[in-house]
Amino acid sequence: MKQIYFTAGPAELYHTVTQHLQTAMNEQIGSISHRSQKFRDIYRFTVEQLRELMAIPETHGIFFTGSASEIWERLALNCVEHESFHLVNGSFSKKCYDYALALGKFAHKQEKPLGEGFDYSEVEVPEYAELVALTHNETSAGVQLRTVDIHKLKRSYSKKLFAVDMVSSAPYPDLDYSLIDSAYFSVQKAFGLPAGLGVWIASEKLLERAEQLKKADQNIGAHHDLPTLWKFYQTYETPATPNVLFIYLLGKVAEDLNRIGIDNVRRDTEEKAKMIYKFIESHSAYEPFVKEDRHRSRTVVVANTIQSSANVIAEVKKAGMVIGSGYGKFKDSQIRIANFPATSAEQVQQLLDVLQKIG
Amino acid sequence: MKQIYFTAGPAELYHTVTQHLQTAMNEQIGSISHRSQKFRDIYRFTVEQLRELMAIPETHGIFFTGSASEIWERLALNCVEHESFHLVNGSFSKKCYDYALALGKFAHKQEKPLGEGFDYSEVEVPEYAELVALTHNETSAGVQLRTVDIHKLKRSYSKKLFAVDMVSSAPYPDLDYSLIDSAYFSVQKAFGLPAGLGVWIASEKLLERAEQLKKADQNIGAHHDLPTLWKFYQTYETPATPNVLFIYLLGKVAEDLNRIGIDNVRRDTEEKAKMIYKFIESHSAYEPFVKEDRHRSRTVVVANTIQSSANVIAEVKKAGMVIGSGYGKFKDSQIRIANFPATSAEQVQQLLDVLQKIG
Repeated sequence: MKQIYFTAGPAELYHTVTQHLQTAMNEQIGSISHRSQKFRDIYRFTVEQLRELMAIPETHGIFFTGSASEIWERLALNCVEHESFHLVNGSFSKKCYDYALALGKFAHKQEKPLGEGFDYSEVEVPEYAELVALTHNETSAGVQLRTVDIHKLKRSYSKKLFAVDMVSSAPYPDLDYSLIDSAYFSVQKAFGLPAGLGVWIASEKLLERAEQLKKADQNIGAHHDLPTLWKFYQTYETPATPNVLFIYLLGKVAEDLNRIGIDNVRRDTEEKAKMIYKFIESHSAYEPFVKEDRHRSRTVVVANTIQSSANVIAEVKKAGMVIGSGYGKFKDSQIRIANFPATSAEQVQQLLDVLQKIG
Repeated sequence: MKQIYFTAGPAELYHTVTQHLQTAMNEQIGSISHRSQKFRDIYRFTVEQLRELMAIPETHGIFFTGSASEIWERLALNCVEHESFHLVNGSFSKKCYDYALALGKFAHKQEKPLGEGFDYSEVEVPEYAELVALTHNETSAGVQLRTVDIHKLKRSYSKKLFAVDMVSSAPYPDLDYSLIDSAYFSVQKAFGLPAGLGVWIASEKLLERAEQLKKADQNIGAHHDLPTLWKFYQTYETPATPNVLFIYLLGKVAEDLNRIGIDNVRRDTEEKAKMIYKFIESHSAYEPFVKEDRHRSRTVVVANTIQSSANVIAEVKKAGMVIGSGYGKFKDSQIRIANFPATSAEQVQQLLDVLQKIG
């Protein structure tokens, strides 16, 4: 029997994926050339659907990589000469910082423990930081950085490049791309696709920066460097053979979400998040890991458990559902519940009913 | 109606892919965690099947990237301090060289025009080259470098690291991994899968080299650097979320090929190649682009055409088959025919019958 995956990615596949995959196989999308008009039409369609869904303006190109992790590297290489700045409050924001360090950048960080979030007023960006790297949704801790804070921060540091990790929340965050220079995600989270594709949104300002650095003989990388990605993007092509099938699937799922409407997708997400938080707040066997409501992720909910989380996870599994454990040192004392468009309010209720009985 | 793809990649899907994909969807492979035992079992299974198929010893790790192009970058970063050496005779061997240059390496090349191949006796590797980068099958020109020459060359320069691009030929070449330090391919060619996965085979010697460079504070990259890939590979995991679905499919197709037996797979490839070359040699409307039989690729056949190749391609398409055009300046005067395991001798005969009528 099939399980319902409430995991934070890879996650439950969006309910239309099987049908789209079938269509793709019938149309032999796995065999078409990435230099064909058919591929260019797929790339353009996916870009158009993402632009509509996430209000991404024409000033921003949309590019495909193997994963979002790859984009951490491309960002540091293509828009940092010397210094970057990172808000770190979990494993994934930390990894972005670590990538910049490994590439020889002077990476600054402002750090908080797992479970704590940042507010606009407390963030201080170092004077010489060229790039400000923010994480909209820290998957490891279930903490969000509100878009209103992201936008305020950019207004206070308007000359710096801003990049937003929305790996485990896109298309939920209503980012204002007139402010945000770059954002990125991977498709195995809220888009409900199998893993194997990263999506990089980058502005013309980021391109200019990469071109400057290249001209100044900085190593901006050889694979998927921004100027080369952009050059091919002009004709909806990619420098290397991309994951054509998943680009096709992403366009189709984005189209499905557009039919529902992004406002409805966001409202659904918020309502389901409310259901989950209300439950874990009211039940004595659980409590929200993140104390402040404004910092609580709407797409990945983390709860402390009274009993061993392994027990809870095992009982949930018996009922046909999969939830995640806590991250790192919280592995045995927390559960993580993804709240993506692929799981309905009815399925969330089904999960909460089981958690109710176990508790 | 479905077409038969004789293109050099993306190519015809191997005939079992649809069934494996169906099984994968039923088993929810697209949703399982890349930190689960189920994923580790898939990674191990795929490694075991590839080891059996291509006689890859335990001294060599097997890693997954987004594409083979990504591996060009990882190779230059992880095993070249100063100098590399490249045999260049087409677009793809040239790109490997260009990647090394872009990363600030002193990259040497020995170059020949498209359509010409290299023999062992004529290759001179510069004294200080640390890495010798060879292309077993130059996809753009349909030229092969025989494994016997590759092995002799390594014996003559035994202290240098040897890396072999077998993107459009694996698992055909019978490489001796007691000599070859690294080889790599992508799955959308002879393995008959959709594009979106690169496979990197690397020896312990390569790992040692990468670790030395890292210790000496060289930038070996932040994403998919060899020491990190190897660390996770110890438990059949990957540093970032990989393309789980395609790793599964690759293992399954490799298993299918193992059932046939690699000797039979190679013999079939050679027999079909003979059919195609014999045809284009004997028909007045075509001629082999590559003059010397020993340099003629067994997996990608390039033929000059008397009439415009666009005509030939269009006529073939009417008959339900897809072949490629020539590369670059040969676009209008050549056709390229992939000869991968996914297309049977009967299908090859069907193609030749159509080419016969057009000519």
